[in-house]
Amino acid sequence: MRNLLLLSNSTMHGTEYLQYAAENVKSFLKKFSVEKVLFIPYALTDYDKYEHKVKQAFSKFGFDLKSIHRYESPIDAISEAQAIYCGGGNTFCLLKALYDFKILKPIRDRVLLDGVPYIGASAGSNVATKSINTTNDMPIVYPPSFVALELLPFNINPHYIDADVNSKHMGETREERIKQYHEVPNTPPVLCLREGSMIQVEGDNILLKGLKSARVFIRDEEPKEYDVGTDLSFLLKH
Amino acid sequence: MRNLLLLSNSTMHGTEYLQYAAENVKSFLKKFSVEKVLFIPYALTDYDKYEHKVKQAFSKFGFDLKSIHRYESPIDAISEAQAIYCGGGNTFCLLKALYDFKILKPIRDRVLLDGVPYIGASAGSNVATKSINTTNDMPIVYPPSFVALELLPFNINPHYIDADVNSKHMGETREERIKQYHEVPNTPPVLCLREGSMIQVEGDNILLKGLKSARVFIRDEEPKEYDVGTDLSFLLKH
Repeated sequence: MRNLLLLSNSTMHGTEYLQYAAENVKSFLKKFSVEKVLFIPYALTDYDKYEHKVKQAFSKFGFDLKSIHRYESPIDAISEAQAIYCGGGNTFCLLKALYDFKILKPIRDRVLLDGVPYIGASAGSNVATKSINTTNDMPIVYPPSFVALELLPFNINPHYIDADVNSKHMGETREERIKQYHEVPNTPPVLCLREGSMIQVEGDNILLKGLKSARVFIRDEEPKEYDVGTDLSFLLKH
Repeated sequence: MRNLLLLSNSTMHGTEYLQYAAENVKSFLKKFSVEKVLFIPYALTDYDKYEHKVKQAFSKFGFDLKSIHRYESPIDAISEAQAIYCGGGNTFCLLKALYDFKILKPIRDRVLLDGVPYIGASAGSNVATKSINTTNDMPIVYPPSFVALELLPFNINPHYIDADVNSKHMGETREERIKQYHEVPNTPPVLCLREGSMIQVEGDNILLKGLKSARVFIRDEEPKEYDVGTDLSFLLKH
């Protein structure tokens, strides 16, 4: 039943919040006749400020939006939601809050059983997957687990960036980090979304959309590039 | 009693392993008449290969070295150690192994109570501090806690890198990440060591050494730069 729109990032350099993905967000939500979106702001600390910024963007797109922190019961907010938007920030803060407020399973059930459309950006895309093992964020708080919403059985690496061949910095490249992850036994595929890219998921169909090709890492295989428009549904079968 | 040499990184671009810090490592270990170093390889997965590489470097410096994975009992290895070198790699893997092998407290006791000299590089410097909350690494495994060896009461960010003002990438800069950490209540100072820098700690004296200035972030204060040669002992008082 799942309907997901998972963005690498919310903002492209020099443009407004979600501007690059405006048409994708609009057509995705309109298909389900959504009028009002439930916003999950937990990846940042100032929920009011974050809601204000996101509300402005969604309002331009023609949708009302309210943050979950305005509701007395977060669980009631989820059971009433027509659609969910989970914004970016720090993935560890976000996942910890989902555990603290006990809303991991309620969100999963609404999306997987009731078909409530879910949009994620950056950290909001990380938590939509199997786990947050491939976030780029700093582990500034300790969540009770790295297991996430499991709306998909693989991992996403948002903000994917190719190695700068001229760099003299000795920190690991993104590719090296993902390969280190795949040295751990039984780790799932990692879909690396460059900034400007996204996937749209309808049931068992995954389509790569946006501006840039994506890179897929599968354990014990060479990484592969996939162009915008590619059907990535094979990721569900690993 | 602590005697620590904590390096930002093991290797500078275009030079050999630990070459930039050779004189620092040699004079540090000679002061304690060390002949043999116990190596902790858990930040990488191939312990034999890692030991081989590190053994070559220490051999050039005039020291014998053996990896802890060669001992039947890791705890016995630590109780016999003349000095400990904890190498870089993935901080989450390293800390998880310290917990799994139950050697966190044995190492802490040997360093803080017996004065056994400890050298760390990158992940090995992260785990020497209060916690791994300010590692740059990807969370590829889940350790039972982010609390680390607590040889020092603050955090280190190794491989510190200044923001590239020309970058169009929208991932957070290192400075933004540290500031997000300090939005969490009661977080300690973060000492950011650029590649090529290190601190030498003798009891309550901390000296900045190496090639580059360091940046210190303290919660609710503006970050400050400190030149090589600066006494950073004030970090113990926060």
